[in-house]
Amino acid sequence: MSIITNKEVLLNNARTSRSRRAREAVLGALEAALESSDPYRLILDHVRRSGSRLVVDSESLDLDDFKCVYVIGGGKAGGAMAEALETLLGDRITGGLVNVLENTGSRYRTTRVVLNEAGHPIPTEDGLEGARRMLEIAERASGEDLIICLISGGGSAMMTVPREGVDIEDKQSVTRLLLHAGADIGELNTVRKHLSTFKGGWLAKKAEPATVLSLILSDVIGSPLDTIASGPTAPDNTTYRDAVQVLHKFGLWDQVSSSVRETLEMGLRGHLPETPKPGETAFLKVKNIVIGDNRRACLAAKKNLVEQGFNAQFLTSYLKGEARQAGLLLASIACEIISSGNPVSKPAAVIVGGETTVTVTGRGIGGRNQEVALSAATAISRTDGVSFASIGTDGIDGPTDAAGAIVDGMTVARAQEINLDCWRFLKENDSYSFFSELKDLVITGATGSNVNDVAVLCVV
Amino acid sequence: MSIITNKEVLLNNARTSRSRRAREAVLGALEAALESSDPYRLILDHVRRSGSRLVVDSESLDLDDFKCVYVIGGGKAGGAMAEALETLLGDRITGGLVNVLENTGSRYRTTRVVLNEAGHPIPTEDGLEGARRMLEIAERASGEDLIICLISGGGSAMMTVPREGVDIEDKQSVTRLLLHAGADIGELNTVRKHLSTFKGGWLAKKAEPATVLSLILSDVIGSPLDTIASGPTAPDNTTYRDAVQVLHKFGLWDQVSSSVRETLEMGLRGHLPETPKPGETAFLKVKNIVIGDNRRACLAAKKNLVEQGFNAQFLTSYLKGEARQAGLLLASIACEIISSGNPVSKPAAVIVGGETTVTVTGRGIGGRNQEVALSAATAISRTDGVSFASIGTDGIDGPTDAAGAIVDGMTVARAQEINLDCWRFLKENDSYSFFSELKDLVITGATGSNVNDVAVLCVV
Repeated sequence: MSIITNKEVLLNNARTSRSRRAREAVLGALEAALESSDPYRLILDHVRRSGSRLVVDSESLDLDDFKCVYVIGGGKAGGAMAEALETLLGDRITGGLVNVLENTGSRYRTTRVVLNEAGHPIPTEDGLEGARRMLEIAERASGEDLIICLISGGGSAMMTVPREGVDIEDKQSVTRLLLHAGADIGELNTVRKHLSTFKGGWLAKKAEPATVLSLILSDVIGSPLDTIASGPTAPDNTTYRDAVQVLHKFGLWDQVSSSVRETLEMGLRGHLPETPKPGETAFLKVKNIVIGDNRRACLAAKKNLVEQGFNAQFLTSYLKGEARQAGLLLASIACEIISSGNPVSKPAAVIVGGETTVTVTGRGIGGRNQEVALSAATAISRTDGVSFASIGTDGIDGPTDAAGAIVDGMTVARAQEINLDCWRFLKENDSYSFFSELKDLVITGATGSNVNDVAVLCVV
Repeated sequence: MSIITNKEVLLNNARTSRSRRAREAVLGALEAALESSDPYRLILDHVRRSGSRLVVDSESLDLDDFKCVYVIGGGKAGGAMAEALETLLGDRITGGLVNVLENTGSRYRTTRVVLNEAGHPIPTEDGLEGARRMLEIAERASGEDLIICLISGGGSAMMTVPREGVDIEDKQSVTRLLLHAGADIGELNTVRKHLSTFKGGWLAKKAEPATVLSLILSDVIGSPLDTIASGPTAPDNTTYRDAVQVLHKFGLWDQVSSSVRETLEMGLRGHLPETPKPGETAFLKVKNIVIGDNRRACLAAKKNLVEQGFNAQFLTSYLKGEARQAGLLLASIACEIISSGNPVSKPAAVIVGGETTVTVTGRGIGGRNQEVALSAATAISRTDGVSFASIGTDGIDGPTDAAGAIVDGMTVARAQEINLDCWRFLKENDSYSFFSELKDLVITGATGSNVNDVAVLCVV
């Protein structure tokens, strides 16, 4: 069965053979992107065992150098990653514990690694307990041991251990206040890392002198190691001073709980240790390896399109900004391809990745990917042989059951036939209702992975 | 002297040698784009005289086949185009008249072609009179004559001849009402063409059976022949019915003057002729040749960058949407180039053209190009060797004396040093004040041409 479960419907919605070909190419490329970001496959693709050697991309370790091999970590892809790793290493794994999403533990089969269920996005006591046990494993490990750490999106909430004196509600309340005030992910993490004993490199610090190999599936644009799951095994560049300044910047210093203020003030006065910094010995034996991210998914889509005979161009994995504007811009490239064969000649494909945002002003139902697609549809109207789709690689675009949507040059006309006005749906942020009517939602179900969004444009 | 008159200042604003190299490449490419869209040069580049033959791109005419050669037309570049054509054809030109911008007639030297001053954007009586005389020349011309028509941006206002019974104020008022109601250029032209005896192919129709060669400098994205200067020598696909529907769609039917309503109703009842349609004999001897437009300017920038040793990519000449969003998107490509060498490896350049818009919510001074640049600056902050600039090819960005602005990875930091907050200036739509302080405005003066906007990103 196809990864996109309604693929036949989407192909049959094409009005011309050229549009059908374009749709087919787009959907094939998106399936390649989804396949490439499957966590189970990613482990098997990136990690090889050759005799006693464990090879991960360009890194290589000799398992015979280690007495014990522990597997810890967590995130939405934790279960699949742990299962795949057991398939590879079997009883060479001494033991370990990985936090997986609530109500999904039974989906994965492991015998050596305990799968512990943790809440998301609100941390649960079980999740905390699991993370504490990971810290114990790390602290107990000796210089002759190897710790393999599996990190994926959602790990921040699923592996949380507040500093002594700060309780979990206090930490959550800071997070909420900062998000509401408009803090970016960097500012948010600056504060959170200084209230944690797990994030901001602490896990790596506690594992010293063991060897640490972190295998990371990134859900953050640009894959900064210190940001994915708040960087438990990555050095932190921020300080207590920075954390305090962030709270002052947003006028929140007096609104956070006294335990948060006291902790940060103690840190500021040097009574609490700083997060581990770049260059510290704690990181000498730590390898952080990103095995899956948006760029890799985009490149998998590109490879697929090249195999389909397309002149394919991968533009960026840093796409951000307002969804409908991104749609216009991608459509503007379609127009240029049609008119002049720039930047690539037909059959042409353009791939972009990242994550847009939607400023909601209407009362409809939609997601950022569906809104990108709807906006693009208005700007490629009346072309033939052009198709565009955008999806969230987790299979869930906004509060909907679709991964995204697909459009072509006849989408606007097909909508008009059944009295749907694209511009009105766009205005109401009602992309889901629009594509439901046209049966052009891209449906995959939850994929168990997340490497942000991928969009593909094809012109045949 | 450089086309960009403050080029040295802009180069000296670089903080590192890599940034300076990036700025130098960007400015060199923009100068190439401006040079390529100079109307005088465009005529000399595209039109060649070889003995009795007149060669324009792939078209070729034998001047000996014609008794008289008339030169008519108008637009902001009319004077420069007419002067260049006289340089080429000299006394082979029988005579003619071209409408040029008010107060600029004395800048150009012609002896055969009368330069008649016309108002813009509000049509003047002199402009009307000039356009009427062009129609007379067209009507008098025989099958043995050649009419060379010079068309450029602004021509719609500068060559207007309302239908009998509709006065110029009525026509202007319809234009204003439609623009205010949100009609697009297509809808606007549908109405205007049906109130004109010059636009919408009428000039070509009146010139029948003469041969007509239209040399067109396009200020419309995508260069649709029926839209540039409202297409005086291009067939029109729209009808009286369409024009009436447009007015009804925007609820303006009862608001326009009775002369407009009566004219459209007479047309609807078949009592007035339709605009000339594709396939009509009127166009058998008409050649419309676009000699300059945004794409050509972008390609000139690309050529320059390739000569500078850059891996250059021309993405689109159809850029539209909100200026600050376009800035983010272009910056996202810069990030990808830095991280992975996609879509092109360093030294890398990306060129885009088109025309963005600014939704004004603040009270500052700025232009769309300056706002694109300011937004891009926020997203390339802390990089080295990245520079980006966006300019209007007419040299006038919004209500300012700058063509646009240039930024690099240190723009935000330089601003912070003098206590300028980028985000505040962006929020206030105050890009001009921001770049004035940093002395990073790109200054060219009015160029006498207009092929929309060109933006260049370089990463070294």
